[in-house]
Amino acid sequence: MLTYSFTDIGPDSLYMHLYKCIKNDILDGKLEPGTKLPSKRAFAKNLGISSITVENAYGQLLAEGYIFSLQRKGFYVTELPRVMEKAQEEDTKKNIKCHALDENETLNGICDIDLVSNCMHHDNFPFSIWARLMREVITGKSSALMQKSPWGGIMELRSAISLHLKQFRNMEVAPEQIIIGAGTEYLYGLIIQLLGYDKVYAVENPGYKKIAQIYKANNVACKYIPIDSSGIIVDELKKRGADVAHISPSHHYPTGIVTPISRRYDILGWASSGSSRYIIEDDYDSEFRLAGRPMPALQSIDVMERVIYINTFTKSLAPTIRISYMILPKRLLELFYEKLGFYSCTVSNFEQYTLAEFIKGGYFEKHINRMRNYYRNIRNELMKRIKASPLADKCEISEEEAGLHFLLDIHTDMQDEEFIDICRENRINVSCLSQYYNEDKDDVDMRNSIKQHTLIMNYSGLKYDDIDTVIEILCRVIGV
Amino acid sequence: MLTYSFTDIGPDSLYMHLYKCIKNDILDGKLEPGTKLPSKRAFAKNLGISSITVENAYGQLLAEGYIFSLQRKGFYVTELPRVMEKAQEEDTKKNIKCHALDENETLNGICDIDLVSNCMHHDNFPFSIWARLMREVITGKSSALMQKSPWGGIMELRSAISLHLKQFRNMEVAPEQIIIGAGTEYLYGLIIQLLGYDKVYAVENPGYKKIAQIYKANNVACKYIPIDSSGIIVDELKKRGADVAHISPSHHYPTGIVTPISRRYDILGWASSGSSRYIIEDDYDSEFRLAGRPMPALQSIDVMERVIYINTFTKSLAPTIRISYMILPKRLLELFYEKLGFYSCTVSNFEQYTLAEFIKGGYFEKHINRMRNYYRNIRNELMKRIKASPLADKCEISEEEAGLHFLLDIHTDMQDEEFIDICRENRINVSCLSQYYNEDKDDVDMRNSIKQHTLIMNYSGLKYDDIDTVIEILCRVIGV
Repeated sequence: MLTYSFTDIGPDSLYMHLYKCIKNDILDGKLEPGTKLPSKRAFAKNLGISSITVENAYGQLLAEGYIFSLQRKGFYVTELPRVMEKAQEEDTKKNIKCHALDENETLNGICDIDLVSNCMHHDNFPFSIWARLMREVITGKSSALMQKSPWGGIMELRSAISLHLKQFRNMEVAPEQIIIGAGTEYLYGLIIQLLGYDKVYAVENPGYKKIAQIYKANNVACKYIPIDSSGIIVDELKKRGADVAHISPSHHYPTGIVTPISRRYDILGWASSGSSRYIIEDDYDSEFRLAGRPMPALQSIDVMERVIYINTFTKSLAPTIRISYMILPKRLLELFYEKLGFYSCTVSNFEQYTLAEFIKGGYFEKHINRMRNYYRNIRNELMKRIKASPLADKCEISEEEAGLHFLLDIHTDMQDEEFIDICRENRINVSCLSQYYNEDKDDVDMRNSIKQHTLIMNYSGLKYDDIDTVIEILCRVIGV
Repeated sequence: MLTYSFTDIGPDSLYMHLYKCIKNDILDGKLEPGTKLPSKRAFAKNLGISSITVENAYGQLLAEGYIFSLQRKGFYVTELPRVMEKAQEEDTKKNIKCHALDENETLNGICDIDLVSNCMHHDNFPFSIWARLMREVITGKSSALMQKSPWGGIMELRSAISLHLKQFRNMEVAPEQIIIGAGTEYLYGLIIQLLGYDKVYAVENPGYKKIAQIYKANNVACKYIPIDSSGIIVDELKKRGADVAHISPSHHYPTGIVTPISRRYDILGWASSGSSRYIIEDDYDSEFRLAGRPMPALQSIDVMERVIYINTFTKSLAPTIRISYMILPKRLLELFYEKLGFYSCTVSNFEQYTLAEFIKGGYFEKHINRMRNYYRNIRNELMKRIKASPLADKCEISEEEAGLHFLLDIHTDMQDEEFIDICRENRINVSCLSQYYNEDKDDVDMRNSIKQHTLIMNYSGLKYDDIDTVIEILCRVIGV
């Protein structure tokens, strides 16, 4: 293992010293590109320092682009661009930083094809329009920008969203029902504050793990409810005493299941038959339904006012613009303002006004249409080449009609974990359906029902040029 | 009371119909400027509709500038600018909107001098620099803007804040300890998730009411702890079983008390003597200490790592830019990432990078210095004119050395509530110290200790031109 001396380190803090040692070894070539760095704990033990010190040093190296991380695998040395090698050390640092940040090539250069994260290439964001609208907002609305936003968000944005929902999703929603917040995670927390800490919140199993983590971090009871081919199982909601069901009927993640209309009415029926029952309808991906007719939102067939609808611009516009919204049923509005009306809106006025202009000017619709085409082309190409490859006999594609991923059932005897590890050694980050199940150790049926060998092919960050590499590596991993 | 018919309202929703009726009466002059509209509940009952419908109609009128609200008083008809009266109805609507938003004059035109809210006149925000930096960020960092921010915020911003704290507040803080979030209210919620829902959180009494509201909304035990002339009383923290003390030792709101160093050590001693005790140091106003030497932050004399420091740019830069930060002691970092590391940062990359450049370029320091001068001049002028007015014999000024308000003890027999009401009838929004006490009905000592007749003169939104009006009206109200 790497060993550095911590005597005579001068005025530097421990982490700064460690950071400099590692950086020098990278720049000198002693640590070669792709080298895995020791785990934080082991390294800390070896050096006799705290693991936070190692974490801080790694954090700094990461921020400056000297190393990169693979989820659950660890930290690796980045391949520095050739032109850098001759440059002065100080310049190098600066250049690498620019390179890593501005070209987004350093990581991908040596491998990193990511089929797990939701990413977006910067070519796809309408920077010039956004910059122009931001400039117009700053020069034209200086006073409004300095006035406290209403708690639910500025009316211009809420009206624009209301109109968009009418045109795009055929939803009738008053602007007053729309509440703006800095990301869906924040809004989930607000909903708990609104509906109560004594309620039992139910999430889909399998499902997006973060949702359960948020309920747990907020100290409320959270139950995992199994799904069948139509979505969440209503009898299980009853059996497990759920009060609030958090579901994604339009496009379940990661199975892609679209809940049919009959099940939707069953779920609404369940909600209507208890006075404290509510449904949180997470419609996160509805803009990117690439085939088939869109289902009406639960919210729009909910005459009993039991549905809280949630959607976000972080998925449809850019992951780093933190604007999401929820639609409260009118019966909850009074309680919402009474209980939580003292809060301030979490999104800056600058971005609220810019987004309002972006939607009103028709740019959002154009952006969505362009991205749908872009994603459709990537998806079609990826599926076409899989079907034309040796992989074709060793896999089946399913659930290809919704969202920004499809499922790939692979014929292999490998355990999923091993499969994922080997892919990562080959520089592809993939995930499997089995990872999205909550492992309820007491529930043998559940454990037996976990489907193995199903890859989740999230192509939202995949580039054309990488498609062949993906297929090649998958072939190699399963040995065809 | 106003009465409108709800038969034959055509395709309009109820609220839209009500909104149009009131708007027409305002435009026709039937409802005169300054007229108080009926309370939502009473109006709803009278019209036989729900109070949410009335709320929505009022909300729309408010957003378009036809009416304005006074806290706890109700809604009033705005004085429409004379030039508007002849314009076409459709244009009027648009113009009023622009007028209300762009000139910020409509409300002030008929009265509204606000000595309660923290506001900022748009002349004081450095729009051109902000716009330029935002443009540079958008053109120069397109890829970084699309990359997920680390959970604690982008490193550039955290490093810039770290350097600023070193220079400005003599605080030694590693960037990794700094966690960025969309407003202090959001960060308080995170701290609860971090420290636990089983802890007892203590707030100052009197104090900023919103803090207690947030703890209650998050379903944790919240105790009110009395303060004396040095700040929070440590024996009371012990007596009431507090685990976490949420305090503002550098500038207590609203009394302006600065906790002396000896009490600071007492508080740190209290925190160190229990394994789950922590201090939340709310340093919200430290940039605007206008006189005297700044006290060191509790955070910087805390060797036992018991202090979580919180500060915000919403107060020092602009209320509508939602960027705040907290500094975690290193011992909590590991737990923070372990328990809450799955969350996403709530502030958009666009604003994080822009603020980082704003601080790094020295603009933040310039802005603070400029605003300190601006506020100092307003404060000095306000105090000078009070001292030269008939008010001088009827009041004492105290705590003038800290923050953006001072206290004015008025000689009057009026109850505070009556005093505030009469001020508002005269179009000045003021608040009194007595409003910041939590009324603990069982605690007779506490109730008896509530100080009457002390106005909180928050001059952060006061304009030079309004100073004489303020004094004139105060004189009239107390009859000199």
